[in-house]
Amino acid sequence: MAGAVPEPPAGTAPAGDAAAETAAALAALAAVADDLEARGAVAAEVGNKDGQDVLNAQALMARDPGLAEGVQAKAAEGYAAARAVFESFGVYREILAGAGEYLAARVTDLDDIRDRTVARLLGLPMPGVPESDEPFVLVARDLAPADTAVLDPAKVVAFVTEEGGPTSHTAILARTMGVPAVVALPGATDLADGTPVLVDGQAGTVVVNPSEAVVSAARDAASARAEALSGASGPGRTRDGHPVPLLANIGGPRDVPAAVENGAEGIGLYRTEFLFLDRATPPSDEEQERAYREVLEAFPGGRVVVRALDAGADKPLAFLPPPGDEPNPALGERGLRMLRRHPDVLAAQLSALARAASGQDAKLQVMAPMVTDAEEAAFFAAACRDAGIEHPGVMIEVPAAALRAGDLAPEVEFFSLGTNDLTQYACAADRQVGGLSHLQDAWQPAVLDLVASAASAGIPCGVCGEAAGDPVLACVLVGLGVTSLSMSAPSLPLVRAALARHTVDECRAAAVAARASRSAGEAKEAARRALPGLADLGL
Amino acid sequence: MAGAVPEPPAGTAPAGDAAAETAAALAALAAVADDLEARGAVAAEVGNKDGQDVLNAQALMARDPGLAEGVQAKAAEGYAAARAVFESFGVYREILAGAGEYLAARVTDLDDIRDRTVARLLGLPMPGVPESDEPFVLVARDLAPADTAVLDPAKVVAFVTEEGGPTSHTAILARTMGVPAVVALPGATDLADGTPVLVDGQAGTVVVNPSEAVVSAARDAASARAEALSGASGPGRTRDGHPVPLLANIGGPRDVPAAVENGAEGIGLYRTEFLFLDRATPPSDEEQERAYREVLEAFPGGRVVVRALDAGADKPLAFLPPPGDEPNPALGERGLRMLRRHPDVLAAQLSALARAASGQDAKLQVMAPMVTDAEEAAFFAAACRDAGIEHPGVMIEVPAAALRAGDLAPEVEFFSLGTNDLTQYACAADRQVGGLSHLQDAWQPAVLDLVASAASAGIPCGVCGEAAGDPVLACVLVGLGVTSLSMSAPSLPLVRAALARHTVDECRAAAVAARASRSAGEAKEAARRALPGLADLGL
Repeated sequence: MAGAVPEPPAGTAPAGDAAAETAAALAALAAVADDLEARGAVAAEVGNKDGQDVLNAQALMARDPGLAEGVQAKAAEGYAAARAVFESFGVYREILAGAGEYLAARVTDLDDIRDRTVARLLGLPMPGVPESDEPFVLVARDLAPADTAVLDPAKVVAFVTEEGGPTSHTAILARTMGVPAVVALPGATDLADGTPVLVDGQAGTVVVNPSEAVVSAARDAASARAEALSGASGPGRTRDGHPVPLLANIGGPRDVPAAVENGAEGIGLYRTEFLFLDRATPPSDEEQERAYREVLEAFPGGRVVVRALDAGADKPLAFLPPPGDEPNPALGERGLRMLRRHPDVLAAQLSALARAASGQDAKLQVMAPMVTDAEEAAFFAAACRDAGIEHPGVMIEVPAAALRAGDLAPEVEFFSLGTNDLTQYACAADRQVGGLSHLQDAWQPAVLDLVASAASAGIPCGVCGEAAGDPVLACVLVGLGVTSLSMSAPSLPLVRAALARHTVDECRAAAVAARASRSAGEAKEAARRALPGLADLGL
Repeated sequence: MAGAVPEPPAGTAPAGDAAAETAAALAALAAVADDLEARGAVAAEVGNKDGQDVLNAQALMARDPGLAEGVQAKAAEGYAAARAVFESFGVYREILAGAGEYLAARVTDLDDIRDRTVARLLGLPMPGVPESDEPFVLVARDLAPADTAVLDPAKVVAFVTEEGGPTSHTAILARTMGVPAVVALPGATDLADGTPVLVDGQAGTVVVNPSEAVVSAARDAASARAEALSGASGPGRTRDGHPVPLLANIGGPRDVPAAVENGAEGIGLYRTEFLFLDRATPPSDEEQERAYREVLEAFPGGRVVVRALDAGADKPLAFLPPPGDEPNPALGERGLRMLRRHPDVLAAQLSALARAASGQDAKLQVMAPMVTDAEEAAFFAAACRDAGIEHPGVMIEVPAAALRAGDLAPEVEFFSLGTNDLTQYACAADRQVGGLSHLQDAWQPAVLDLVASAASAGIPCGVCGEAAGDPVLACVLVGLGVTSLSMSAPSLPLVRAALARHTVDECRAAAVAARASRSAGEAKEAARRALPGLADLGL
């Protein structure tokens, strides 16, 4: 994935031929518009109608006659084509940026068109996710949610990034798609386009130009694992029959089929922000209700745990901007903090959820993100009751909430541990910074202590962070008292198999051994030694 | 304090008179250069020779003949004076930014000269801390360490900011200077220049245009408090004689007199980064040694706790840039994480410290900032031993380190709790965001739990965060097992008086009551009720 397009040099055209520069600039704009429309058509084919609308609107901007006039005028002043384009967009950009929230949100789209046009004129690679007719391994510095929203899952067979930790969005996306990913790999972006690579997500390795023998050994190992898993099915339970519901993390109805296929007993984390991303206004009540009902209908007799909108931090929303500059968005106005500033958005979501659940056979549970103390938990529970939602809960992802779980428990019906953020805050290590990945590890004994604190507060306590999808850690979590596990659908079979091979007492012994360790590495080793059934699974 | 200077509009001069625009631009540059030199002379008068050097170097840049030529050329192209200045600086800016770390660090200086010149040409207020012949209340959106480095303490009688929490740098600076501050005050920057205000730092209120009666009542209350304090002196101890050394937090030798005046028994936190700020290269070994020895000499028989360089986050250093973009610098490469990437900087500092301590009568203790686990503590202790430093310790400011204090304790000789960052991470609430100040409260029961965990690990455990300077919380900290308290010098008398009025058992009862609470507010109230001697002090 190519990096950002640089600002074109401010010089004038070599020959000063304004007509030729204008023609080149307009041709590039037209080509960008064609390309955007073509991508829109592809998006529509894979069912992404919203994506097509956005891309078509961008194409319209690229074809704007006012923009063409601006380019012509700038070329007449002596600017080269790329600079003339850059300057003309600048005028629009300032108008939009100054014109209130709705239009300001369009600045990003405008910059994208500008960058594509400039890249074309300067012969630079197109910014953003590359397009390819063949499946490919995507190598990038890092991936933002906005980049990944347009990914074609049929095309990307693996991810390799230079930045990002094990709980970064790239890693999570890869797990959701069931493809291997290696993150925080120094020098990854030095790989030349078209180099064959073998990506082993489990081992975290990338072999460049692998030999045929290496490729075939990797293929054999993959089939052996698949064989071992084919035996495991049905609801999650330990070897001695202790039930541990296995649920899936989803971003919307389109992730439901994979969850069902992998035997999820319900949804443990429905990330509703994907409904709200890349839009100038919140989705309508009807649109929300539909998106929620569709998921509930897929799990009759099961449960669906919906997380209220988690805006802010690395998921900024155009219509919910932070109230001020945030030097550290992850420590800023996000989750419930943001929802309390916009009670109308919260009330609309909760009431759409209540309507969606009415008459359904699935149990709807709704939880608040980024809760810090008992007062916030009580606020959210009251908002749920007002909307007619019967089962309110809170995410435990702030260390203070985990430590004082006993204070929060009387206010709500359940907890769900977000181990990714919990680890990020407990170890003060950004999930998005590759150099700190050794600290972004839910195996850190301090994180296990926090899990134990939350799980012993007397109400059901699930885990919906990536830790739940690690088959070894999943056993330890059950040993710590966690009552359900929710993960990316492709992780379910291996976790189901690992639980089925161990008793609750073995899980408890593994938890005790892990907490008695002094580092994440020691904790993992100690837990492995206490879990004899892992060998069967090649773990 | 005026906000940022906007980019001047890209238009051309109205009359197209290039000579007049050039003359205006050059006159503004000369005026800016004069002004910088004048400020340099003032800095030199108050003993800040380094400050003068920086300002004189900036003046030289403003007088650069190449820059003048550039401005003339741009004016000849038809640009108005302000834009011609802006464009000419742009060329230099790009050259510097691309020329490696040393010169890249000069970009900030260059931008400052550019902004001052543009402000002068457009009739805008000068950016940065205002200059005034009279003492004034500084009202700002927020203050960066770079702004406050040039403050004249004789001129600023109070701070009021719209952003920032109780542990923001503004608040800390105000306590160091012994002046009142009110932070996170919505609408503060709407106050017109010259409006009389009454700032009550204790109550957190700002009265605009106060009546004479209000002013005189405030004066009376201040004298009454001063009276009550005049009785307290000598080393810190509880009413029943339990010693609690009272130490001062300092940024360098110039803060020592205030510490001595207020009866500090030593230094509990020497923030060495002020030696390193605003420089292109680290200070020389000799300069460091001198700055450390000067402080050690002031406390014969006492102790001086030096914190190794805490670069990164809100204290970026030009010669220690983070290895990549950091979306959340507070969760990034900072403190010991950064020092491990630059072992030469750490080794040089430790060896300068060891030399400074040799032959001194004060006990030197050195601690690492931002330690997360036992492995990092062991690394730092080994580096200290290698440099000949006998008393290594670690800051406890990451929740994981507090939770696993028992794992870290065998590696070092002492802990020092940084309650500001510990609270920020435990509650996932940025110290710099005003809207979250209710969560940035060391009274949060979860933070008290973490303090208790660190204080019970079997080695001496001080507190050097702002919590130590709160007379009520100071008693609770002692009750939790904290063995020394370090704070801004002006806070020492009131804390000394509060401790002298309570027994250790009363402190313990207050700690138990606070931890049994469900919120920061309840904890504070419960502690107050358990501390009968506060009333004497009007607390």
